[in-house]
Amino acid sequence: MKIGVFLLLAALLAGVDTAFAEEIPDAPDVQNNLNFVWTIVAASLVFFMQAGFTMVEVGFTRAKNASNIIMKNLMDFSIGALAFWAIGFGLMFGATNTGWFGTDGFFLSDFITDSDPWLYAFWMFQVVFCATAATIISGAVAERTRFIGYLLYTVVISAIVYPVFGSWAWGSLYHGQGWLEDLGFIDFAGSTVVHSVGGWAALAGAIVVGPRLGKFNSKGEPKPILGHNLPLAALGVMILWFGWYGFNAGSTTAGNSDIALIAVNTTLAAAAGAIFAMVTAWIFYGVPDVGISLNGALAGLVGITAGCANLAPVFAVITGAAAGIIVVISVAIVEKFKVDDPVGAVSVHGVCGAWGTLAAGLFNSGNLFSAKIIGVQLLGIAACFIWVFPTTYIAFKLIDKLVGLRASDEDQYNGLDFSEHGATAYPDFSVTMTH
Amino acid sequence: MKIGVFLLLAALLAGVDTAFAEEIPDAPDVQNNLNFVWTIVAASLVFFMQAGFTMVEVGFTRAKNASNIIMKNLMDFSIGALAFWAIGFGLMFGATNTGWFGTDGFFLSDFITDSDPWLYAFWMFQVVFCATAATIISGAVAERTRFIGYLLYTVVISAIVYPVFGSWAWGSLYHGQGWLEDLGFIDFAGSTVVHSVGGWAALAGAIVVGPRLGKFNSKGEPKPILGHNLPLAALGVMILWFGWYGFNAGSTTAGNSDIALIAVNTTLAAAAGAIFAMVTAWIFYGVPDVGISLNGALAGLVGITAGCANLAPVFAVITGAAAGIIVVISVAIVEKFKVDDPVGAVSVHGVCGAWGTLAAGLFNSGNLFSAKIIGVQLLGIAACFIWVFPTTYIAFKLIDKLVGLRASDEDQYNGLDFSEHGATAYPDFSVTMTH
Amino acid sequence: MKIGVFLLLAALLAGVDTAFAEEIPDAPDVQNNLNFVWTIVAASLVFFMQAGFTMVEVGFTRAKNASNIIMKNLMDFSIGALAFWAIGFGLMFGATNTGWFGTDGFFLSDFITDSDPWLYAFWMFQVVFCATAATIISGAVAERTRFIGYLLYTVVISAIVYPVFGSWAWGSLYHGQGWLEDLGFIDFAGSTVVHSVGGWAALAGAIVVGPRLGKFNSKGEPKPILGHNLPLAALGVMILWFGWYGFNAGSTTAGNSDIALIAVNTTLAAAAGAIFAMVTAWIFYGVPDVGISLNGALAGLVGITAGCANLAPVFAVITGAAAGIIVVISVAIVEKFKVDDPVGAVSVHGVCGAWGTLAAGLFNSGNLFSAKIIGVQLLGIAACFIWVFPTTYIAFKLIDKLVGLRASDEDQYNGLDFSEHGATAYPDFSVTMTH
Repeated sequence: MKIGVFLLLAALLAGVDTAFAEEIPDAPDVQNNLNFVWTIVAASLVFFMQAGFTMVEVGFTRAKNASNIIMKNLMDFSIGALAFWAIGFGLMFGATNTGWFGTDGFFLSDFITDSDPWLYAFWMFQVVFCATAATIISGAVAERTRFIGYLLYTVVISAIVYPVFGSWAWGSLYHGQGWLEDLGFIDFAGSTVVHSVGGWAALAGAIVVGPRLGKFNSKGEPKPILGHNLPLAALGVMILWFGWYGFNAGSTTAGNSDIALIAVNTTLAAAAGAIFAMVTAWIFYGVPDVGISLNGALAGLVGITAGCANLAPVFAVITGAAAGIIVVISVAIVEKFKVDDPVGAVSVHGVCGAWGTLAAGLFNSGNLFSAKIIGVQLLGIAACFIWVFPTTYIAFKLIDKLVGLRASDEDQYNGLDFSEHGATAYPDFSVTMTH
Repeated sequence: MKIGVFLLLAALLAGVDTAFAEEIPDAPDVQNNLNFVWTIVAASLVFFMQAGFTMVEVGFTRAKNASNIIMKNLMDFSIGALAFWAIGFGLMFGATNTGWFGTDGFFLSDFITDSDPWLYAFWMFQVVFCATAATIISGAVAERTRFIGYLLYTVVISAIVYPVFGSWAWGSLYHGQGWLEDLGFIDFAGSTVVHSVGGWAALAGAIVVGPRLGKFNSKGEPKPILGHNLPLAALGVMILWFGWYGFNAGSTTAGNSDIALIAVNTTLAAAAGAIFAMVTAWIFYGVPDVGISLNGALAGLVGITAGCANLAPVFAVITGAAAGIIVVISVAIVEKFKVDDPVGAVSVHGVCGAWGTLAAGLFNSGNLFSAKIIGVQLLGIAACFIWVFPTTYIAFKLIDKLVGLRASDEDQYNGLDFSEHGATAYPDFSVTMTH
Repeated sequence: MKIGVFLLLAALLAGVDTAFAEEIPDAPDVQNNLNFVWTIVAASLVFFMQAGFTMVEVGFTRAKNASNIIMKNLMDFSIGALAFWAIGFGLMFGATNTGWFGTDGFFLSDFITDSDPWLYAFWMFQVVFCATAATIISGAVAERTRFIGYLLYTVVISAIVYPVFGSWAWGSLYHGQGWLEDLGFIDFAGSTVVHSVGGWAALAGAIVVGPRLGKFNSKGEPKPILGHNLPLAALGVMILWFGWYGFNAGSTTAGNSDIALIAVNTTLAAAAGAIFAMVTAWIFYGVPDVGISLNGALAGLVGITAGCANLAPVFAVITGAAAGIIVVISVAIVEKFKVDDPVGAVSVHGVCGAWGTLAAGLFNSGNLFSAKIIGVQLLGIAACFIWVFPTTYIAFKLIDKLVGLRASDEDQYNGLDFSEHGATAYPDFSVTMTH
């Protein structure tokens, strides 16, 4: 903290001059305005992904926990946004001497003295990214996690875990700097920075909180626990896909011609992911499974996120197709290890995020299969796991000690909607509670 | 009307020259084009809020009235758009000598002679605002209002009530002028102009139509009537939040750097509103209630709407947090007065709209707590109530005389879907009709 | 194919140069960037229409087929996107000597040598249009079509039927040319090119696959088969309306002032369509029917699509109102002919697409009721039917021979979710399966 309490307060209370001088704009001015418009539109699209995550998680879990899912998603954004405002943004993009994390800019304070409105546009785009990483965990720990524990966890990932790793890979986008980007790490829109961070935290959470009541029998054999509303899950996936155009193409944070290839790659990878996941499931399980196909589209989207700006379209197809296959295999393996991940978040975001980051190196335009690039990508993938998994594992363990993380068997049986919120999501329907 | 019937017809039938001269654009041309793009994108987002209102109202009411909710929302937009085209826009933005309402521009006619395509962009943005004010009433009078009465009411608010107040506060945005704005009234995106107008009309409607069958027992004690689909309500809130970026940031009707702070403030206020409503409910009622938390997000959004462009972010947090607390208290008070508002529209839009308008004065950048500004804000808040509540109260009373506003007890018991539309929203489900 | 296999591979593997020269942009550069931003935003909105179609079709059909509807919509986009990338785009916009279809540009290959990023933006906008045409069929053949047959059909329309007709009307938008546009055919955003193509293919599919089990009794009298979730259908319509602003206004593929009138016309036509369909149903059937009113809004949207850029607003109202009336009558007529179209796709997209194309000629700005223009419009409408209906009829017949198109009575009785996907969309609800 370079400034004292007085200056902090002054900055917080400072008037924001919104007077817009009505001068004749020149071309760079207009380009600057276009960058604002594009970034805010894209940030809005990424915000809307919160609705997508909520619908996916509601649809893929049981009716008796739907209200709890809603509250977790509403609150991980709301609490996360304030935590990122207060602490996270400064850690991620503040000035740093070490390259490990920023040390100023909390509450947007120091930055305000810049008088540069770009700060607000950039913060807006970053806060919805932080919220995406945070909300990924929600699905993996669904149906057996106490609400208060989840809220505490939200603060940890939004204020510390995500921003610190983010500063390594993206810090220089504002005032900061980062050791991973200095090495040449490629992760244009966050296969690793956002999705793997969320995925590995989801893995830690799912392990610490343990499987849902009844997920594994006394012999350790898994029992399928079906969701309750596939149309909402499908709607959620389509909202996510829609929002991903903001997520990937918006990561230019500039309105220019680069966004077109990014949108094309995003489309092709998602399509290939859906198709190849469906085909893989068809071969392995005998039917074109709906949930797997929907997750395949998400896998393709996560996969192309790192390389969307620097892959030729044919490689977007290959990256997405591979992600669609990988996600099916990964879901099976995660279950083999007796980790209960109700929506497949670890596989979709963690594993396919890692794959996408590798693919961005493998198929890098103009440097296909460069060993040096691939090495840096693998380093980044490893660094993410090494930072995120232990810290979030410890955080979940501490929260468990502090307030209790796992809902009792009775509460799980009755549903978290009842035990945590005194509510039911569908008071008017005859819902057959699946116990 | 300055022109005669002949000219009116000529204007209506006039060819619209869409030829686009392929000259080399200069920077002001491009800025102008950017303003069109931003305004149309933002208007589209605000249109999408109609889906949000529909889902919120469907989710928070009973299954037997879901089709009726859908029809009210579809038709208040559709009829409202034509009424605003024919009459409302002219009243709101037409030329005026008095400052009370405009007197030309009906059917977009006089304006067409301008040959300025900006008219269309501006109208597009305004029509979705008008529709927002109109649709707020829908939830407050849900589950016991006859469809035909609601349709007539839609014409009244879209053609007269909203445009007249709008002309006082925003008339100068096009050809008009308005006495409130001349005094310095601050309501950047419509906490009062849109949300309080809708909220006070909702209050009038809820009083005139009376409470739902069974809402209060013979001793006047309230009975909770639960909604039927919280996931759809949550989706609706998230759609509204998403659309609000168009609502607030789009109110620049210009693509420039001002939109960034607006988006940041919108985000922080909504987040704070959700959190503080949840905490307030947790303290008062013992559980983190889902419906209250969702309404808290909306309260924060309504609250920041007036001041989004001229508040420092820390005050957006305060404004939103206060709105989240206020909405919980207000909902309890409204019920104490035996007014039945199924979705809390009066509190969310009316009361928090008033609070937001006051907050825009209290925390005004560079003029914190200025008595003069606060005075004008209070005047605007009062003027809104004094204009809207009596006129809409009379309108509802007249409609009641004319066609009958309240559905019979039997029709309420069977559901308006059956009595008004010969339909059920879920023919295939075993819905336990809550009577 | 002008280039050999070697060049094709080279092009596919070519590095894409995304380096962005940080030069000072001039006004034409910025306008160019604005065109990219607008086109990608609009394309994203059109993509989101896929969610709209899915929700409409899910809502208007029975619960036992909801998963199948989801899979068809997910896959017609995914498979269609890859087919359009590989083949369709080249047929539609590739260079041509004949004016009948393009002969290069498959896999985006030849085009890449342009090094013009506009190719990507243009492809992105076109692929979501192709997907719109493809997905229209899904609803018309719902609840009795085998999944594998539908997938094959998706390839046919995305790779061949849609692109060939598209090349006639829109080929010159990129490298190609087309005989219909040479005659002066007006179809700005695709009333014929997209919606009638989809609608006539839907008609062919509905005829070949035959009516649903139980739709007509032994005397040939129709029996209503109700959908299962009107709120999702309503959400779908509102998503479609929202996306339509991208569909129509985005068809400028340039960020300029023309988009404002287009958005206004789109709004007015949709509103008028909803109102007039409701009134027509009220007169004919005695109630303001929900499904009909929702389809009325879509009919208005389809109707204004051809003429949205060159009609005065009053004619948008007339075009939409007429579409709202036409769709009610058309649905009744289609059923009279014993064609079973569960969602009314033939009427909404085929018939109202034809009406809209005619209306674009009738009310053409500056040339009201010109016989010459009307003649060309009628020729285009006829050409569409003559090309699409026979080719898709044959395609469905061939697919039927090849893999079997119609699900068995038993599978229809149990639901396609079970027979095709081994799933149920609502495992947790007591759904009363309507057989």
